[in-house]
Amino acid sequence: MTDKNTNIQKLRDEYAIFVNERNWNQFHDPKSVAASISIEANELLELFQWDTPESAREKLNNPKWRAKVEGEVADVFIYLLNFVNQTGIDITTEYNKKMAVAREKFKVEAQDDLEAYYKVKEDYRKAGK
Amino acid sequence: MTDKNTNIQKLRDEYAIFVNERNWNQFHDPKSVAASISIEANELLELFQWDTPESAREKLNNPKWRAKVEGEVADVFIYLLNFVNQTGIDITTEYNKKMAVAREKFKVEAQDDLEAYYKVKEDYRKAGK
Amino acid sequence: MTDKNTNIQKLRDEYAIFVNERNWNQFHDPKSVAASISIEANELLELFQWDTPESAREKLNNPKWRAKVEGEVADVFIYLLNFVNQTGIDITTEYNKKMAVAREKFKVEAQDDLEAYYKVKEDYRKAGK
Amino acid sequence: MTDKNTNIQKLRDEYAIFVNERNWNQFHDPKSVAASISIEANELLELFQWDTPESAREKLNNPKWRAKVEGEVADVFIYLLNFVNQTGIDITTEYNKKMAVAREKFKVEAQDDLEAYYKVKEDYRKAGK
Repeated sequence: MTDKNTNIQKLRDEYAIFVNERNWNQFHDPKSVAASISIEANELLELFQWDTPESAREKLNNPKWRAKVEGEVADVFIYLLNFVNQTGIDITTEYNKKMAVAREKFKVEAQDDLEAYYKVKEDYRKAGK
Repeated sequence: MTDKNTNIQKLRDEYAIFVNERNWNQFHDPKSVAASISIEANELLELFQWDTPESAREKLNNPKWRAKVEGEVADVFIYLLNFVNQTGIDITTEYNKKMAVAREKFKVEAQDDLEAYYKVKEDYRKAGK
Repeated sequence: MTDKNTNIQKLRDEYAIFVNERNWNQFHDPKSVAASISIEANELLELFQWDTPESAREKLNNPKWRAKVEGEVADVFIYLLNFVNQTGIDITTEYNKKMAVAREKFKVEAQDDLEAYYKVKEDYRKAGK
Repeated sequence: MTDKNTNIQKLRDEYAIFVNERNWNQFHDPKSVAASISIEANELLELFQWDTPESAREKLNNPKWRAKVEGEVADVFIYLLNFVNQTGIDITTEYNKKMAVAREKFKVEAQDDLEAYYKVKEDYRKAGK
């Protein structure tokens, strides 16, 4: 089973059963789970703490490092599933809403340098929030 | 389209095309994208900054607040897609690996109080890392 | 030596010497150090990951837990010193500027419930940014 | 007043009075304040979200950007003061304890490349935790 043949709901359901069996929902309020996503995201970030963009890219070729990165990605994803399970949010629906806005705001034209990229992102933030 | 009928690869591919069309891969090194997941996770956390578990749960019933939460969930998910697209990590594979370990470590028995919950998590961390 | 008889510059200087002796400035660009503050803040947050406000407060009475908290507080502070050393920012000056704005915006009157507290914070954000 | 002539306790006391006058201690449990440090650290990190080490350093020369950075540094520091005020932790004491360990673990010798730097940090983590 890979991303190609797995729908999101299947993983949501599987994880919900795992949590329910252990009676953990009592601990998983939205604030604690949001904090958990942040905590795991920072464990992922820590794997690149002192890297340049180049050394960060290269590191992924190191199998031992790559395995750590994979583990942290899974942790972020699992807490995200936890959060949407607790709150009844549909990821696909929210993804599509967000992308519809992004497609309109960010015209299809290359941003050729970092300054231009920051500028479109900044314009988007101001407009979208 | 909802989580029930959407496979993960479809969203990955759609997002990859969006990024490629805009020539943004040049800016999306793994460190910056990991930082972005953390930044968005903290925007989600900010929506519950001063809440108790109870007030955090209640807030989701407020449609205006809920819409903000949904937007931040989408942002976390989109940067997670970005990260796995950049690095070629398969989410489902990593989810399954992690859950196989978790199922073995966390026996199916209720943890009845917070102390017990912290304890199994602590044991898991020590064993799993 | 305690906070009562230590000025901030003393700690800044001491830490700057420590870093210089080890030739670490080359690794300490502002982005990596900002990421480090976030990473350490999340190690602090992790110590309260599943707590309620009450259980979080109680935990500080546990000497073993308290020692962990103290260690993470030191880590956050050290990376903050690192950041201001790299960038030449004066903490006291910025503290005073921020507090002058806060004193004006947040009138001296009790916010009696969580909703009122969120409201003044929200008004402040809108006004102050 | 600058870092040169300000002791930490002075800022702690000043901030404690500000919070007390507004009756905010009721909202400032250690978990929420730890979350707040993370939230502000990520607002700081966001100012360098897509930067390379070089572009991050250059940005500090832009007065408008620099002012934003200064504001976020102040926010991180203020929530750190909040945390130590709530918990009665002495920053200087914890700084000194941490640095005493660091001085012993990290010998005074230059780490000449990123790999060596990661290695000493990794060794330190394993030994120190």
